[in-house]
Formats: sequence, structure tokens, C-alpha cells
Amino acid sequence: MSRYWSETTRNLVPYVPGEQPKQPGLIKLNTNENPYGPSPQALEAIQAANCEHLRLYPDPASDALRDTIAGLHNVDRQQVFVGNGSDEVLAHAFNALLCHEAPVLFPDVTYSFYPVYCDLYGIAFEQVPLDEQFQIRLQDYRRQNGGIVFPNPNAPTGIALPLEQIEDLLQANSDSVVLVDEAYVDFGARSVMALVHRYPQLLVVRTLSKSHGLAGLRVGYAVGSPELIEGLTRVKDSFNSYPLGRLAQAGAQAALADSAWFIETRNRIVHSREALCLRMQEMGFEILPSSANFILARHPAIPGEQLAAQLRENNIVVRHFRRPARISAFVRITIGTEAQCDALLTVLVRLVGTRADSAITLD
Amino acid sequence: MSRYWSETTRNLVPYVPGEQPKQPGLIKLNTNENPYGPSPQALEAIQAANCEHLRLYPDPASDALRDTIAGLHNVDRQQVFVGNGSDEVLAHAFNALLCHEAPVLFPDVTYSFYPVYCDLYGIAFEQVPLDEQFQIRLQDYRRQNGGIVFPNPNAPTGIALPLEQIEDLLQANSDSVVLVDEAYVDFGARSVMALVHRYPQLLVVRTLSKSHGLAGLRVGYAVGSPELIEGLTRVKDSFNSYPLGRLAQAGAQAALADSAWFIETRNRIVHSREALCLRMQEMGFEILPSSANFILARHPAIPGEQLAAQLRENNIVVRHFRRPARISAFVRITIGTEAQCDALLTVLVRLVGTRADSAITLD
Repeated sequence: MSRYWSETTRNLVPYVPGEQPKQPGLIKLNTNENPYGPSPQALEAIQAANCEHLRLYPDPASDALRDTIAGLHNVDRQQVFVGNGSDEVLAHAFNALLCHEAPVLFPDVTYSFYPVYCDLYGIAFEQVPLDEQFQIRLQDYRRQNGGIVFPNPNAPTGIALPLEQIEDLLQANSDSVVLVDEAYVDFGARSVMALVHRYPQLLVVRTLSKSHGLAGLRVGYAVGSPELIEGLTRVKDSFNSYPLGRLAQAGAQAALADSAWFIETRNRIVHSREALCLRMQEMGFEILPSSANFILARHPAIPGEQLAAQLRENNIVVRHFRRPARISAFVRITIGTEAQCDALLTVLVRLVGTRADSAITLD
Repeated sequence: MSRYWSETTRNLVPYVPGEQPKQPGLIKLNTNENPYGPSPQALEAIQAANCEHLRLYPDPASDALRDTIAGLHNVDRQQVFVGNGSDEVLAHAFNALLCHEAPVLFPDVTYSFYPVYCDLYGIAFEQVPLDEQFQIRLQDYRRQNGGIVFPNPNAPTGIALPLEQIEDLLQANSDSVVLVDEAYVDFGARSVMALVHRYPQLLVVRTLSKSHGLAGLRVGYAVGSPELIEGLTRVKDSFNSYPLGRLAQAGAQAALADSAWFIETRNRIVHSREALCLRMQEMGFEILPSSANFILARHPAIPGEQLAAQLRENNIVVRHFRRPARISAFVRITIGTEAQCDALLTVLVRLVGTRADSAITLD
């Protein structure tokens, strides 16, 4: 603790991202990266932008990229905000749109960066418990609030909400912003994107890190009413005029334009998830119903922390959350390539056996 | 003004960056970019990193890049902080280190983002007037403060401070952070970098946008005592775990390692600046003594705003600041290539004539 730190800094408990191991040869299934990588057209666009022009500042408003996003979602450019990864977009949203007298509401089991943003900006918040099936109950959010935030599908559960329930909430909650974090929506949930035309309080946040295979480039965006986007832009222009460099703008634009690559790789991941779940259930795993590119799974015979450690000994990295306690029995496993899923299953069989084996173990 | 905006958002007056014109064929001398572009080794390193690995998150701590910076300045890795452009580094510094009860002090004529950060984070500030020669008088900063911030050389004046005066200030001011913004230091000022070993309150901020020709990549950094860097890191890890993507880390590392390119291009810019100043002085321009890659110049016969407009009609873009009023008679001109300087001089001669002509005009 330094006397030079501001009061805010002293009290922060920063977010801890999943490990980015530096040793090669690991099967990395811990931070929900896309095993198939970005569109080749994105790599080509980056290569074309990687030239002497890097001497020049990028377009501070990212107009070309925002036009591409607007076209994709059938909205206007002034309904689109872009940032240095969806984490930055979320940070600005908490500061610009969610800092009011009443507390912000979000689930008790969700993306653990949300309470960190609240601490950073001095925002009161309340964590609303998931139900017994680890589902978000939107009726519990119908009360005084300074904003409502949830991912759809939720993380790290992977469970999606029906679109109709979200629209019901929007109809009941018009005085504060409803932020739907759609980081994982492409893997199976229904998007609320089309509702931005009808609900000025709706902000939809997306990332290119997952379904577009560009976690290393750092691009995220938000779509909403022009008034919400203007609020975000005011904060962004008071923080960093140029959040996206020339390579990020070029690569993101090309990635979003290549729908064929997006659909093919997304479908492969969804197919692998379903196959992996079946096989793991045969081994006795309980798996929450996932609409994401990861699964949250637990086995009756092995605590989550131990399973993560044993997988690591076998060069497979998954994520275990010690907190919240409700999910500490689980591990979160990113869906890899078919070969990576097979390698995972081979190790899991060795560790937990088949369902018959584990039944015997439990006797 | 939207009811969804937070109080902070309502009251912001965002920073307005210099124009990034989209039409081709302009001679762009308005945002202090480097006319020679980045090291070819930086472009090669980016090309090597532009591959399937973009699917993976970058190293959140940017260790390899920070090690390169540490080696360059003879400090340890834990004395180095990196960010998405020096604007982001400055934003985090204001939040983490400069938010205290007493006001932050900075010059009345300086980088106009400083008061914007203060508004964003609710920091009280006082602007300390430059002297009659547009110089920073550091003795005026010897009073109660929550932090002291100034660029060296100052922008947009280009005037550098003697190293001894900064060390005198550091000796007199140990209870709050002294942030020296060395965005332009490579073009002629003496750096305070070596003093970080002796003064734990000193934070030195640098950018790769100017002397390393990488404005389009977005990389900046800070060097200081481990306690200051830890404070910055706490805020960064509460805002965005991955501020620098894989391409930015790779390109910045290679650019910083190529000292030959850096020295050659820097020397050409300094040589062009001196030659340009001589020729413009012959035309009757008054030019503040610049240690930067730009000059602040005024002509007795043409108001700054008019001169900027007339240059624009001739496809040359420079920057005019309407505020603060003390510099509204000037234009700020970035040092371009030799050919760009010649083109500028050709237009200026047509607009203002030689000194003899302008003397006649003034009669």
C-alpha cells in the first residue's frame, strides 16, 4: 500500500483473468478461446494494414468498422460503439450508464469482472441469486435498480435465457439500462439484438474474442439506442481517443464480413460440445445445459479443484473457480478442436472411469 | 442529454483530437505523426504475429515487452507499466495516483487532455500559468498539491525544461506524484528517466506514437518506482486485463529494439525542424524554441486561424488551437519529411512573402 495511491486504488480487488501459460504443448481449455482461429480474410486485412501507414493515428471513431457492424445488425452507425475488447466496452458502460443512486443488479454467479467495475467506479450493486438449477430468474430483477446486467448465455454456467423473458423484463424496466452481455451468444442462445429498435434502455455487448477467434486482437462492441451510444462515446473520448489501432480496425472489419468462416467454425464448436457432453455424461459428469463454447461440469467422485489439478498434470488446462462456493465443485472446460476433445476424454476416462466404475467407487 | 447517463457522463467535456482526414493527397502536419514510419523490424514482427495464434489472448502482463522497455531504461520489469497508447497510461495515472484531496497542478498551456481526465475522475486541478516566454516555471509548483503533471518538452509549445530544474522540484515535492510526460522527449529534451531510481514519486510516461512512428498501433508506457507501477496495475486490472493485443506487443517490442532506425529517423526530423525554423524566421514568423517534432509559430500579418485555413486550401493540414487564448495567434506544425517541409515553405512564401514583403504589408 503506497501513500501515492488514490483512495480508489487502495480499495480495489482487481479481476484475475484465466492463466495464459507460456510453456508450449499444453491443451489450453481455460479461457474460452476459439480453437479454429480467425478468418483467413482477417489475417489478410491485417497484413494489408501492416505497413508504413502505422505511422498515422487510426480513425478515432472507427467509422468503417462501425459501419460493418451496423450493417450486420441492421442498425445505424450511431447505434454502434467499439472498444479495446468487450472488457473495455463493459468498463465504459458501467461508468457512463450504470452509475446511479440505486444499486446495479447482476447474478451472484456470473462474469466476475462486474463487481470489479463497480468497485472501480464506486457503484453500489446487489447480486441476485441463481435458482437451484443455476438459472437466472429475471422476475427477481423487477425492483428498484440503477441498471441490470447479465450475460446471455450466462458465464460460467453456459445457460441461456429465453428471448421472451428478456423482453418481458425490458417492458417492466424502462427507467434504467438493461445490459445484455452476448459474449457467447453465437454458440446457441437467441440474441436480443433486434430489440434495440424498440427499447432505448437496451445495450447489447459483443466480443470478437470468442466466435470470431480474435482474442489476441482485442475488439468488442456495443449496440443500443443513439443516446446510450452517445453516453459511452463521451466517456471514451474522455479516456482515450484512439482505443482501436489500425490493425484491430482492419482485422475486425474483415472477420465480421466473413460469415462463411464464422458459421462453419461456430457449427463445428457446437457439434463438438454436444458430442463431448454425451461422452462426459456417460462417465458420470453432471453438465449444466450449455449454449456457449464452454461447459461447466462436475463429477460426483472428484472435487473440481482436484480435477483441474489432475488435468493439468496431464497437460490439459481448464478453469476452476474457488468462488462463488456454489460452483466450486465444477470445472469450466472450453470446447476445443475434435482432437482436443478426444484427448480430454482419454484423460478423463483414466481419471474417473466410466459411469459404471464411478458407481462402484461411490458404493 | 439522456436520463440513462450517469452524473459523470452528463458533465463531461471530452477531449477533441486533431483531425484524421480521410481524403488522400493531403500533407498531414496536424497530429505530430512521424513522417518516416515505424522500423521495418516492427512490421516484420507484426507479420510474424499475424497468424492463427490471434485466437489466443495476449499475455495480460505484457512481460516480454516490459522486459524490453526495462532493458532500454536500465530498470526492473516491475518498474514498467504499458498501456493502449500513452493516453490510456495517463488516464490510469490520473485515477490511480493523482486523485487526492489537494488539486493536481499542470500548466495553463499544455496537453489539453489533462483537465479532461480530471473531470472524468472528479479530480480538482489548478492550471499554473506559463511565463511571458511561454515557459513552465517550476518554482510556481512548489505548493500544496495532489500531484504535478507536465510534458517535457511541453506541448504545444515545444519548449523543454532543464533536467536540473525538474530534479530541484522532485527534491522539494516528495509527498505527491510528479508525472513527467515525455511524449516528445526524444526530439531534443533531456529525459528524467534515470531519476526514477532516486525519486519514488516520479512517473515518466512515454509513447511509441511519435519518435517510433507507431501512432496507428497504440502503445505507451510508464516507468517509475514499483509502488507507483503497482498502483497503475491495480487500476488496469480493474478496467481491462488485456489492454495490448498480440500485434501491439510484438510490434512495440521490435520497434524499441531497433535503435538504428530510431536514431536515424529522429535525427532527420530534428535536422528538418532546424532548417524549417530558419526559413520561416526569414519570412517573419516567430517560432517558440522547439525540442519536439513540431513547432508553434505565428506570423505578425496573419492570424493563426486564417493561416491554418489558407494552408488547408493548399492541401496542407496544420493544427490551430482557439483555446487557450494565449496561443490562438499560433499554428502548430508537425515536422514532416524534407519534401513536405519544402512544400510547406513554398505555400508559406506565397501566403506571407519574405520578411521584406511582410514588413511592407505591415506598414
